[in-house]
Amino acid sequence: MKTRVIEPASSAYQTPLLIKSILQASQRHEVDNEIIYRGDKSYDYRTFHERVCRLANMLEMLGIGPGDTVGVLDWDSHRYLECYFAVPMIGAVLHHVNIRLSDEQILYTINHAEDRFLFVHEDFLPIIERIHPQVSTVEHYVRLADNPGQTESRFPFRGEYESLMAEASPSHDFPDFDENSIATTFYTSGTTGNPKGVYFTHRQLVLHTLNTLSFGAAYASLPMLNSDDIYMPLTPMFHVHAWGVPYAATMLGMKQVYPGRYEPNALLHLIQEEGVTFSHCVPTILQMILSCPAAAKADLSEWKVVIGGSSLSQGLARQALERGIDIYSGYGMSESCPMISLSHLSSAVRDLPLEEQIPYRINTRISNFVEVRLLDSEGKEQPHDGKSAGEIVVRAPWLTQGYLHEPHKSEELWEGGWLHTGDIGCLHPDGTLEIKDRLKDVIKTGGEWISSLELEDLISSHPGVDSVAVIGLADTEWGERPHAVVKPSQEGLLAEEIRQHLQQFVDQGRINKWWIPDTIRFVEEIPKTSVGKLDKKVIRAQIQSEIEGRA
Amino acid sequence: MKTRVIEPASSAYQTPLLIKSILQASQRHEVDNEIIYRGDKSYDYRTFHERVCRLANMLEMLGIGPGDTVGVLDWDSHRYLECYFAVPMIGAVLHHVNIRLSDEQILYTINHAEDRFLFVHEDFLPIIERIHPQVSTVEHYVRLADNPGQTESRFPFRGEYESLMAEASPSHDFPDFDENSIATTFYTSGTTGNPKGVYFTHRQLVLHTLNTLSFGAAYASLPMLNSDDIYMPLTPMFHVHAWGVPYAATMLGMKQVYPGRYEPNALLHLIQEEGVTFSHCVPTILQMILSCPAAAKADLSEWKVVIGGSSLSQGLARQALERGIDIYSGYGMSESCPMISLSHLSSAVRDLPLEEQIPYRINTRISNFVEVRLLDSEGKEQPHDGKSAGEIVVRAPWLTQGYLHEPHKSEELWEGGWLHTGDIGCLHPDGTLEIKDRLKDVIKTGGEWISSLELEDLISSHPGVDSVAVIGLADTEWGERPHAVVKPSQEGLLAEEIRQHLQQFVDQGRINKWWIPDTIRFVEEIPKTSVGKLDKKVIRAQIQSEIEGRA
Repeated sequence: MKTRVIEPASSAYQTPLLIKSILQASQRHEVDNEIIYRGDKSYDYRTFHERVCRLANMLEMLGIGPGDTVGVLDWDSHRYLECYFAVPMIGAVLHHVNIRLSDEQILYTINHAEDRFLFVHEDFLPIIERIHPQVSTVEHYVRLADNPGQTESRFPFRGEYESLMAEASPSHDFPDFDENSIATTFYTSGTTGNPKGVYFTHRQLVLHTLNTLSFGAAYASLPMLNSDDIYMPLTPMFHVHAWGVPYAATMLGMKQVYPGRYEPNALLHLIQEEGVTFSHCVPTILQMILSCPAAAKADLSEWKVVIGGSSLSQGLARQALERGIDIYSGYGMSESCPMISLSHLSSAVRDLPLEEQIPYRINTRISNFVEVRLLDSEGKEQPHDGKSAGEIVVRAPWLTQGYLHEPHKSEELWEGGWLHTGDIGCLHPDGTLEIKDRLKDVIKTGGEWISSLELEDLISSHPGVDSVAVIGLADTEWGERPHAVVKPSQEGLLAEEIRQHLQQFVDQGRINKWWIPDTIRFVEEIPKTSVGKLDKKVIRAQIQSEIEGRA
Repeated sequence: MKTRVIEPASSAYQTPLLIKSILQASQRHEVDNEIIYRGDKSYDYRTFHERVCRLANMLEMLGIGPGDTVGVLDWDSHRYLECYFAVPMIGAVLHHVNIRLSDEQILYTINHAEDRFLFVHEDFLPIIERIHPQVSTVEHYVRLADNPGQTESRFPFRGEYESLMAEASPSHDFPDFDENSIATTFYTSGTTGNPKGVYFTHRQLVLHTLNTLSFGAAYASLPMLNSDDIYMPLTPMFHVHAWGVPYAATMLGMKQVYPGRYEPNALLHLIQEEGVTFSHCVPTILQMILSCPAAAKADLSEWKVVIGGSSLSQGLARQALERGIDIYSGYGMSESCPMISLSHLSSAVRDLPLEEQIPYRINTRISNFVEVRLLDSEGKEQPHDGKSAGEIVVRAPWLTQGYLHEPHKSEELWEGGWLHTGDIGCLHPDGTLEIKDRLKDVIKTGGEWISSLELEDLISSHPGVDSVAVIGLADTEWGERPHAVVKPSQEGLLAEEIRQHLQQFVDQGRINKWWIPDTIRFVEEIPKTSVGKLDKKVIRAQIQSEIEGRA
């Protein structure tokens, strides 16, 4: 298509989209606002800027430069935030090491990403000591310690973070470079095989940040992020850039609170003490906070929370609203930076009673700049009629352009020029996205699809159920059949009561009779993955072996 | 610099930044909100989308395609907004014809931009009839009429807008293309020579829009743009995209009011009737509205106004605040899309009494993504100490990359890789920018600079002065000397009273004695340019000839 493209004047400067602009912005607004670590360390944005410069100088002094990869193993901290800026701003790549993986997988990701430098919080020293002999590319390890004076280590660290920072100069002239330079990388653990590396460029992160800001601030439907808000992430910073919010919060010069390791009572204390108004997390974390003893007395009425990672259940949404929490949902994944969609409460919805707002707070609407299609199993596009389901495939200016060093999996991810989410959903004409299930968790029975997610939601609405997982197992007659494991919240709950509970939805015509699971088992704990999601791979194996054991 | 750039997977899709994303966003939020024309025509965002599609189909049917230029001569209207989207979205270029230029200049811009198509509001038919014989590239003229049935014309129009729209299909599949494609062009009239064409790409306009949104919504310091706000531009849509706000407002799905031709009483009526909460304009327009009889009774306490184009005087700022208007300033120009800087009211400033907030509402702070330097007459960078003045030069992701077909002037504009604004200012360490004067209006006397702007501000603070212009004229002894023309607001004002008024500032040490103008003349009206700025070229010529006549 021959549009009009004019060659810029030879002296004209084409400003690239770089993370340095985000830091620069933070110096133009509320520079007195504070960045707080665990409630006991804090500094203002002027100091933040100086420390980012110090860190850049420290890295360069230790031989790190453009194109190198720097790994971090830390809890959520001000140090991590400093790395979010300094590392990409010298043209290097920040590897957020997923500390919840197994030793073997952590080793794999460090070698695969070719980390030349590792920042290691002392809590993770045992891991590093174990895998160190097989690490192939790291030249320097730097120790991160909350109380540097009080601890020692025999590990051959190049130094301790604060001492090295103190030696470095507090000013640095950050250069401009290609906006398509890789800024960050991290690994997503699939159900099989090695973790896969995704990667994001400066351009992608700047656009994601600008979109997060306009979404989080400009819409009355979702008033999350204003320069007067106080932010505390509750999604680990190694997990998809803590959903990209630290970049947006820093751009605004907001007061920010980094809580270190997540401990429910400490988190509650920080929310109250620092006046936190905005957080985001997976359902498990919110559940954990609401269940801890101190929660009963806490005032949470100024707290806005976006839930993602797993779907927000009606029960948790209601519980949060009853506590005064302004609750919303987001949808995304490692491959998508992560923003794909967010709750939307139109002005009409905002006028409804809270109970009636719940579905709108659970479902999400496609974000600006994101295009979505639904594909059936033959790749045929499905209508956006709120009924037809299909795999959700997306385009947006901030999606990983492949998996690191995995050309075959990269092409699979992007088959047909659309990024395949692996999720099944339907799309309403107004852009509302309903996630039905993971493609691999959908239960195909007698030629029809059962959404394991929807079935879990219905079972969890029984008052005696704490949590539930539904999986599909091979069945000679039907192809697959659903099976449930339930963690009860009261003693003496019977499978028959749950069957009767589901029967009412059958009678209402909401589900078919064949949705009722073949087996319902009670367990003390439902297996979860490192990021708190139901671990359906493990659950499936357990049920399978129990059934086989019994047979 | 060798950063890490990874070639995307061959199937991966790289989403370009296109204006179509802005329209798409508007369909995902408050689609029931209305776009209103002059208070008597209105439709919702669904219809807006349909009409943009109809317009695209109409243009393509009439032979307009990628790379072609389409000119518009209209007042602020829903039609103009439709053109803002449909024209660039088919890959064509929208030429906002400046209807305030002379016949000769309008002709020049139409031929120079090579318009192939012209939309002409019937109010501008006399102009088109006069210049038509010399127009060289236009193939079709389409008539814009507020009451199409009631008027007729012998001019060979291809048709009337609404009839052609009715014939066209209401759906269109807009393609993706290079984000560096030119989307808009318009002309800026300098003091000498022909108007110069600036041009902006899809990428630039999308980034400008995202920045406007985050600036206008996320900062408590400047709460202009929220999806619940009601927007009415008071800067013509042909003037630097009405400062880019129509794109931001549409993205949010805000209720928007387009007022047609500006008539003070009608504007006031619209503000009240439609509940307008946000506008932007040059000082003259606000002055005009506040001075009209209906203003006395109007409630303006919900109205936020950003002033730009010329500097906001203390007097007007005070007058606005007294009427309850939440008033701010912006700085920019045709070449800069236009956003360079905006008022910033930090939380400390917001706690001050209104009177003390005035300087913060007049000065502006550098926008995110914008870099500023100050250069002295030798091109040497000046410190950002709030005192040293120099020419303001800028970089940002949305600056025109040259002047259309003017390679020499393009290089001049971008000399040294920085866009030269032609304004003199100083920059405070916190990013606050104080505009001192136009480079060409600075008065160089005895080796020192006098800011004509500052001198005007001091003179205008005399209660008997309605408005004032100060210019420099050649002087054999001093190089240049200041001369003033004053429009008095009361009869019998004497030059001597103004001299005494200025003497107090000399006594306070605020200005030097040699700042007091050599001559002070009283006039009934001060010459202004087509966009309402002081026309110093004309004023200078008048004073010069008067002085020569007298000599």
